[in-house]
Amino acid sequence: MSELSAVSGTPTATIKFYQREGLLPPSDKTAPNQADYGPAHVARLQLIRALLGVGKLSIAAAAEVIGSIDSAEPVLYTFEAAQNALSEHLDESDVTPDALAIVDAATTGWRVSPGNPGRLAAARVVDTFGALGQADEAGWFDRYAAAALLAAEADLDEIASRSGRDAQAETVVVGTVLGDALFSGLRRAAQEHVSSGRHPAPPHAASTRPNGAS
Amino acid sequence: MSELSAVSGTPTATIKFYQREGLLPPSDKTAPNQADYGPAHVARLQLIRALLGVGKLSIAAAAEVIGSIDSAEPVLYTFEAAQNALSEHLDESDVTPDALAIVDAATTGWRVSPGNPGRLAAARVVDTFGALGQADEAGWFDRYAAAALLAAEADLDEIASRSGRDAQAETVVVGTVLGDALFSGLRRAAQEHVSSGRHPAPPHAASTRPNGAS
Repeated sequence: MSELSAVSGTPTATIKFYQREGLLPPSDKTAPNQADYGPAHVARLQLIRALLGVGKLSIAAAAEVIGSIDSAEPVLYTFEAAQNALSEHLDESDVTPDALAIVDAATTGWRVSPGNPGRLAAARVVDTFGALGQADEAGWFDRYAAAALLAAEADLDEIASRSGRDAQAETVVVGTVLGDALFSGLRRAAQEHVSSGRHPAPPHAASTRPNGAS
Repeated sequence: MSELSAVSGTPTATIKFYQREGLLPPSDKTAPNQADYGPAHVARLQLIRALLGVGKLSIAAAAEVIGSIDSAEPVLYTFEAAQNALSEHLDESDVTPDALAIVDAATTGWRVSPGNPGRLAAARVVDTFGALGQADEAGWFDRYAAAALLAAEADLDEIASRSGRDAQAETVVVGTVLGDALFSGLRRAAQEHVSSGRHPAPPHAASTRPNGAS
């Protein structure tokens, strides 16, 4: 275990805690004071760190997600588990029927279960948008739905490129956790790009040049 | 103030706290025990609630964002303030040069300052993705960049549809805070839609039908 701790940069006490909480599988004990850890344990520690760090999951939610990777269930169930762990728990009574109708209109033609946590989370955003006195004048909801569809297709293609259920299930979790953060970062970069094309550049931006230009 | 509290559903003590922290402008005192609050105060309380709630901002970050709405600076500066308040503070030393190169390649042609918080946040995701042993086999980064560009164009069009600097600045803040949550929800819904088209539906999904179908 001290070797696993050194290789992964995770304190021994933390490794033991993860094992107690069901996040990390036990070692194959080869002797009373000897335990076997392999690359799978190192990789799992990295995943736990990403779930708790970038993904901001609780220990319980991370255990649920990891359990869904280790189960023999089809990959679709891993999707559900990851979505549920990363979403606030909302039901239809937490949002207005108007907001649900707006989300359903923006996603016309999509096959989505009524209880999909993303459908409800989007409806809550629509409600908040309205409460803030904002009106969707430029097709904001529809255009975000189009962007989300592009991203979801990229997600599913990335998953399909992996061989075997376990590798696919792990990519489901990684993509679900990291995808929001990746999009959020790229959107902020794109906002600067789009606005610099439309508005005179502020003085400090004089040094920016298009990426890829020499 | 008790009327403002009743109309907004915000306790008087909370309103006073927001005023002390610079989130809510003081009233125009019309008499020693009489203060004038108008619809602008009610609207501001809603915005504070959204920043602290859906946006998960700290009090200090919310004050910074609100200050950028109330300043006379161009709308571009409100963008920067909102981005900085909502992003983790990273600099180039927090990410690897390889990850930055991958982000810059995915955003080829974009005008983005090196210190754009989104560029650095995206690079951190790329680093985490690699540390988790994942490889981008299906153009995941490029396709997320395309999705982010669609969303940023929708953001800027939404802002341009507002009249006057103050309304635009407020939409900048609302869109920055709510956009991530909207996309994240819609992406989860789209994942169900895309995966149900590619994989046999699990039993519980038998009742779903395309939105808009009767």
